[in-house]
Amino acid sequence: MITRLLFAGALAVGLAMPTAAPADTLPLPANLVGLDGAKGEALLFEAEARSAYFPLSLQFVTQENQAFCGVASLVMVLNALKVPAPSSPALAPFSAFDQENLFNDRTEAVVPRARIAERGMTLDQLGGLAAASGLKIEVRHAEDTTLDAFRRLASESLAADGRHVLVNYLRSAIGQEKYGHISPLAAYDKESDRFLILDVARYKYPPVWVGAAELFAAMNTPDADNNGRSRGFVLVSR
Amino acid sequence: MITRLLFAGALAVGLAMPTAAPADTLPLPANLVGLDGAKGEALLFEAEARSAYFPLSLQFVTQENQAFCGVASLVMVLNALKVPAPSSPALAPFSAFDQENLFNDRTEAVVPRARIAERGMTLDQLGGLAAASGLKIEVRHAEDTTLDAFRRLASESLAADGRHVLVNYLRSAIGQEKYGHISPLAAYDKESDRFLILDVARYKYPPVWVGAAELFAAMNTPDADNNGRSRGFVLVSR
Repeated sequence: MITRLLFAGALAVGLAMPTAAPADTLPLPANLVGLDGAKGEALLFEAEARSAYFPLSLQFVTQENQAFCGVASLVMVLNALKVPAPSSPALAPFSAFDQENLFNDRTEAVVPRARIAERGMTLDQLGGLAAASGLKIEVRHAEDTTLDAFRRLASESLAADGRHVLVNYLRSAIGQEKYGHISPLAAYDKESDRFLILDVARYKYPPVWVGAAELFAAMNTPDADNNGRSRGFVLVSR
Repeated sequence: MITRLLFAGALAVGLAMPTAAPADTLPLPANLVGLDGAKGEALLFEAEARSAYFPLSLQFVTQENQAFCGVASLVMVLNALKVPAPSSPALAPFSAFDQENLFNDRTEAVVPRARIAERGMTLDQLGGLAAASGLKIEVRHAEDTTLDAFRRLASESLAADGRHVLVNYLRSAIGQEKYGHISPLAAYDKESDRFLILDVARYKYPPVWVGAAELFAAMNTPDADNNGRSRGFVLVSR
C-alpha cells in the first residue's frame, strides 16, 4: 500500500504547510566519484564498457520507498531490455514496467510484495524475481567467485548489447550510509578500474564510480536475511 | 486519483492474466535521431552545450499519465536544480519532488491538479506552475520571438550550470504522434543544429535530437487551450 500512503502523504503535505527536506544528496566519501561532477562525467566519456549506460539511463527511476531498491533496479532492466510490460490504464495503449505492475502471481510465489516492502530482497530473491519476470539470469554470490572473475564477467556484460548486471552490496563497505543495497551497473572504466553504479536511491546519492576491488569487497559481505550467505551480483539478459 | 487507479490497475492485471503491451517505442521519422542509437549517442558526446544533460538525465522520469508531461518535466527540473522538496513519508528523512507532491495550495491557485489531469497544461500554465514552485522563469511564446533568438537563448542556457529549458511543442509538426507536448531540453549540437529533447513519455518515444528550425516551427503553433496563443519555451533557473 506504499502507493496509497505516498499519495495521502503528498496531499497532506501539499495542502497544509509544506515542510522542506534537505535539498541535496549525502556527501560522497573520497573513494567514490559522483556522476554529477566533471570527473564522473569524464570517466563516462572515456569508459571502455558503457553499452549498458544509455539503455539504463533512459529508464532511470527512483526507488519508491526505502525497501524497493531491488524492485526499482528490476524495473529499469526490464524496460531497458524492452520486455513487454503489463498493460497500464494510465498509459494505454502504451505501457512500461513500474514499481507496482512488476508484481504478479509468479513474483508473489518467489517472494511476496509485502515481504519486500518490509525487508527488501536478498540476492537470491532478486535473481528469482528476475527469472519470474521472464529474464535469463545467473546469480553469483561473491563468496563463490573472485574479484577477477567479477571484473571480467561484469565488464564483458557492460560492453555488450542486451545484457545487464545488478549488484547487491553493503553500502557501509564503500563508505556510504549504510545497509545492504541493490542497483544496476552502467559502465566500466578500465584505466581507473571503476564500475559505475546507477544508484536507484536518487534522493540519497548520485550515481557513483567505485573501484572494482571495493565493490567486490562490499558484495562479499554476509546477508543475515539470506542465512548469512554473501551478497553478490546477477547477470541478466532476455 | 491517478495513483490509486494505477495501483488498482496493476493489482488487477498482476493477479489475473497479464496482458502484454507493445514492448518497443513508436518508430521515429527520418528527421529525428534517437538517443537510443549510436548516432544519437555520438551527437551527445560531441555536443557543445550539454551542461543540462547530466543533472536532468539523473532525474529522468516517465510521465505518470498521458496528461502529465508538464508535471513530469517540472519534477525533473526541480530535482535537477536541487530545490528542497516536500517531506515524503516513504523516503524520510530524504525527499524528492514527484508527480504528486509537486502540487500544493500555490500550484492549485495557478491551475488545479484536476484540470491538468484532464487537459494537460498550456505554456503559460507551465510557467505559472514553475514560478509557484519557487523557480525564476521567462515564458517565451514562439510567435513573439524568432528562431535565431530561441537558438541563442536555449543553447546558452544548455551550456550553463543551473539553467534549464522546457519546450512546449506540437508533436505532429516534428513527425511524431500527435498532440501538444512538454519536455525539457538537455543539449544542443551546433554542427547539426539540433536540440536534444528528453521526452518524458518514455513509454512512447526515446529522447530525440530535432533540428532547431523544426522544433521552433513545432512551438510556433496555436494552442486552442490557450486562446490560440502559440506554444513556446520556458527558461528556468533558481
